[in-house]
Amino acid sequence: MRHFVYDLEKLQNLLLEMAGLVESSIRRSVHALVDRDEEEARAVLQTEGRINRLEMEIDDQAIQLLALQQPMAKDLRFITAAIKINTDLERMGDMAASIAERSLEMAKAGPARMLVDIPRMARLTESMVRRSLDAFVRRDEELARSVLESDDEVDRLRTSMHQALIAQMQQDPAVIPQAVDLLLVTRRLERIADHATNIAEDTLFMVTGVDVRHRVAG
Amino acid sequence: MRHFVYDLEKLQNLLLEMAGLVESSIRRSVHALVDRDEEEARAVLQTEGRINRLEMEIDDQAIQLLALQQPMAKDLRFITAAIKINTDLERMGDMAASIAERSLEMAKAGPARMLVDIPRMARLTESMVRRSLDAFVRRDEELARSVLESDDEVDRLRTSMHQALIAQMQQDPAVIPQAVDLLLVTRRLERIADHATNIAEDTLFMVTGVDVRHRVAG
Repeated sequence: MRHFVYDLEKLQNLLLEMAGLVESSIRRSVHALVDRDEEEARAVLQTEGRINRLEMEIDDQAIQLLALQQPMAKDLRFITAAIKINTDLERMGDMAASIAERSLEMAKAGPARMLVDIPRMARLTESMVRRSLDAFVRRDEELARSVLESDDEVDRLRTSMHQALIAQMQQDPAVIPQAVDLLLVTRRLERIADHATNIAEDTLFMVTGVDVRHRVAG
Repeated sequence: MRHFVYDLEKLQNLLLEMAGLVESSIRRSVHALVDRDEEEARAVLQTEGRINRLEMEIDDQAIQLLALQQPMAKDLRFITAAIKINTDLERMGDMAASIAERSLEMAKAGPARMLVDIPRMARLTESMVRRSLDAFVRRDEELARSVLESDDEVDRLRTSMHQALIAQMQQDPAVIPQAVDLLLVTRRLERIADHATNIAEDTLFMVTGVDVRHRVAG
């Protein structure tokens, strides 16, 4: 039994390690974009390899726990949540890598003004990643709910940035390629926020046993 | 034991039912977009509710199987794959609903030319959804690999449509809002293709026991 508790903790620590890498990748990819910092962009692409290896390690660990320990009830919910969270984290890592790649492309085109407040949106999504994982680890219902609220704020930011970028393209067609790139960056940040929201929902299900997904739609 | 086989089959049938709904939602959402068909768009939004309920039912079923049957090896890999595939299908349903919502917005703006060949991209992604689920159900390695190949084709299509849309915006700034909408629709189709690719990869892992994710990146 002590062995099992140790293994569950190991699984949790691997997820936290992965979340730390994802969080710093988001921050660094946006930094690379804003400051045209190619070195930083390449560092994010290297980190993606580590994130991908961690994803496989976490899956292996979770499946072994299911197979060897035949956990029940609460532990079972923890392990199935871990499998889902693992996938969400890996896809966030993909999004950060994709922002880093975009920043390398944009660096080729030379320096440019930032047309919208990407760093603000990035800070909010980073904080959602951190809070969703903290909520999972501490089984903190309130913290998980705060992530759902932030997701609404991200949606509002995205809509206003979307409108601002379209207006700027119409005023000055020369900025179109760059504005489209930035628009797609805001979509990637929004996807990261969506994944953090999924983690918060899985956490709420794990803690309360109540499925909060699809509250309205379902 | 017979009971267990029956339960596994039930899980599989629920996934197939969900995949069928997702596939038809993709087709109908693109139809709604191209033909400005508001009724079709609303039908897709209604289907999303059914897809979301199925997602919860499938998760329940999978977790119960893990808890009550304590499956080993091959069955365990099947059930964990089912949990992941369930998530992918639900997110594909979100994307189709999002295309349907976009088509309602665009219908308000009145009739418009299609600037790029969205239906072609949609047909390819639909076929990826169908093939990835067929590959999973039949444990068909070759079919799963065909999905990975189609994903490269989707990426090529997306890149060429992206370039065409930017050129058209630069030529005629009046089309910018519509072109941006279509650009985002191509991104949603690309995300659906990515989810189908994830299903194909999970299928290959289940069938071969070899993890084909991150072949290069990892």
